[in-house]
Amino acid sequence: MSKFCKSEDGSEAESSVKKVAVAKHRDGTIDNFTDVVSVEEPLEIRLGWTNTDEIQQIAVTMRTPGDDRELAAGFLFTEGIICDASEIDEIESDKCNVVTVRLKTDVKVDQTVFARHSFVASSCGVCGKKTIAAVRVKRQFRCESNSPMIEPAIINGFPEKLRSVQSDFDQTGGIHASCLFTTGGELLQIREDVGRHNALDKLIGTNFLSGTMPLTDKILMVSGRASFELVQKAAHAGLGILVAVGAPSSLAVQLAEECDMTLIGFARNNRFNIYSCANRILTREPAPTL
Amino acid sequence: MSKFCKSEDGSEAESSVKKVAVAKHRDGTIDNFTDVVSVEEPLEIRLGWTNTDEIQQIAVTMRTPGDDRELAAGFLFTEGIICDASEIDEIESDKCNVVTVRLKTDVKVDQTVFARHSFVASSCGVCGKKTIAAVRVKRQFRCESNSPMIEPAIINGFPEKLRSVQSDFDQTGGIHASCLFTTGGELLQIREDVGRHNALDKLIGTNFLSGTMPLTDKILMVSGRASFELVQKAAHAGLGILVAVGAPSSLAVQLAEECDMTLIGFARNNRFNIYSCANRILTREPAPTL
Repeated sequence: MSKFCKSEDGSEAESSVKKVAVAKHRDGTIDNFTDVVSVEEPLEIRLGWTNTDEIQQIAVTMRTPGDDRELAAGFLFTEGIICDASEIDEIESDKCNVVTVRLKTDVKVDQTVFARHSFVASSCGVCGKKTIAAVRVKRQFRCESNSPMIEPAIINGFPEKLRSVQSDFDQTGGIHASCLFTTGGELLQIREDVGRHNALDKLIGTNFLSGTMPLTDKILMVSGRASFELVQKAAHAGLGILVAVGAPSSLAVQLAEECDMTLIGFARNNRFNIYSCANRILTREPAPTL
Repeated sequence: MSKFCKSEDGSEAESSVKKVAVAKHRDGTIDNFTDVVSVEEPLEIRLGWTNTDEIQQIAVTMRTPGDDRELAAGFLFTEGIICDASEIDEIESDKCNVVTVRLKTDVKVDQTVFARHSFVASSCGVCGKKTIAAVRVKRQFRCESNSPMIEPAIINGFPEKLRSVQSDFDQTGGIHASCLFTTGGELLQIREDVGRHNALDKLIGTNFLSGTMPLTDKILMVSGRASFELVQKAAHAGLGILVAVGAPSSLAVQLAEECDMTLIGFARNNRFNIYSCANRILTREPAPTL
């Protein structure tokens, strides 16, 4: 478990890595070792209200244990179900892979958002413009035009800084990370998970619960590819720049353009590609038009 | 689109890759290019019955267009909703990101399986043994003990063969592949998708629809990491060996052991790690006990 991954109170009910027996095949011989793998377990997220017995099961996600309260809060926020930490009365984590978020009695939740997770309600289905409209969340925060601005050399330094603190990846080679940087290149926070969307929900949920939203002056870096889902969650938190080590998808590029977000992919080996809103990258030449 | 990825009739309604404008930053300069990204779009899977108007929306998955009918059939099979291709009357793909699978009138579907996708019905939640029981699908087929058997040198040849036919990855660097090999090392089929589970559902769905199930004599290789979900889908199709280029998760190892499946990870550079059931790997020495 990375030292950056601890909850605020330093407690961790479960380990994020597990030892397993493994036979390693190399050059025609097989030898027995003990190896370490990332823990993957289901987490059930439930939503309830104070002073009522009504509980709704919202989702089950396959995640790496740790920061479960932050994951649940981040999920409810980035999926547009809750808007502010003050709506939460308490979060119960029963050490049994269930987190129950209890809202204050007077908090109303749009029931139609529940349908979106597994089902799209639109009778037309999910084609063309309606597709994206149906699948996506109405943004809570918006990034600022021309802010933050960042030097290319700072971005080139991100991958090494990420790797240096990604302790679970060093051990297991099988975990995703999401982290926040300042425009000066300081790594502020990192969260790791076997699910890329969970790592980002944990990171956003941490800031949501601590009242440090929106994240408009920060830069998000993710260890893998940039999917539609990650761009959507980042945009919801007000982030203006998303840097991915891997490739973006077509819908990630399209949504980043619509959200006025700078989407960067293949950030490694002192190179990167800018897929949208190049104006936030400081260069001596005028910003390229995309 | 890989030539291996075409539907049986050779038709493809949509492209799996898309050109986008990109600014490449390298050595302090930024230049404009046209680049190619993997297409990501939502697919809504619906289930109905012939001669009735009742339609149930089963799932929306973010996928790469192509092989949508196979994806829908594979999803319904690996999730335990249908058991045999003969239960299907027709599959409608409306070119509008909706696939409707119509079952024959007399086919009964266990309604409780629908609940499993988004919600776990167990009142206890999802802890310990019950976790896995609640999340997992009852296997349709079972792999055979001590079959198939394979030489380590054959496994060492898989990654290069996979890369040589993974045309979308060459272009985009951002897509997952699932493929089937014979024990002699011949690559039989490959399917690609931005979602790793979709690539496997497309591959299994292709065989489900063509009546070439179970896949007990084949070997599955996946381009990324091995999650619980991939092991579950592979086990459901009767596969005895799963080879992953990346790392396995803890639950993937646990489920592979329970299913008597040989789980191999980090298969690259002429090396691989065996996490369960090493008995299917032919060696001069006795098989290691894991």
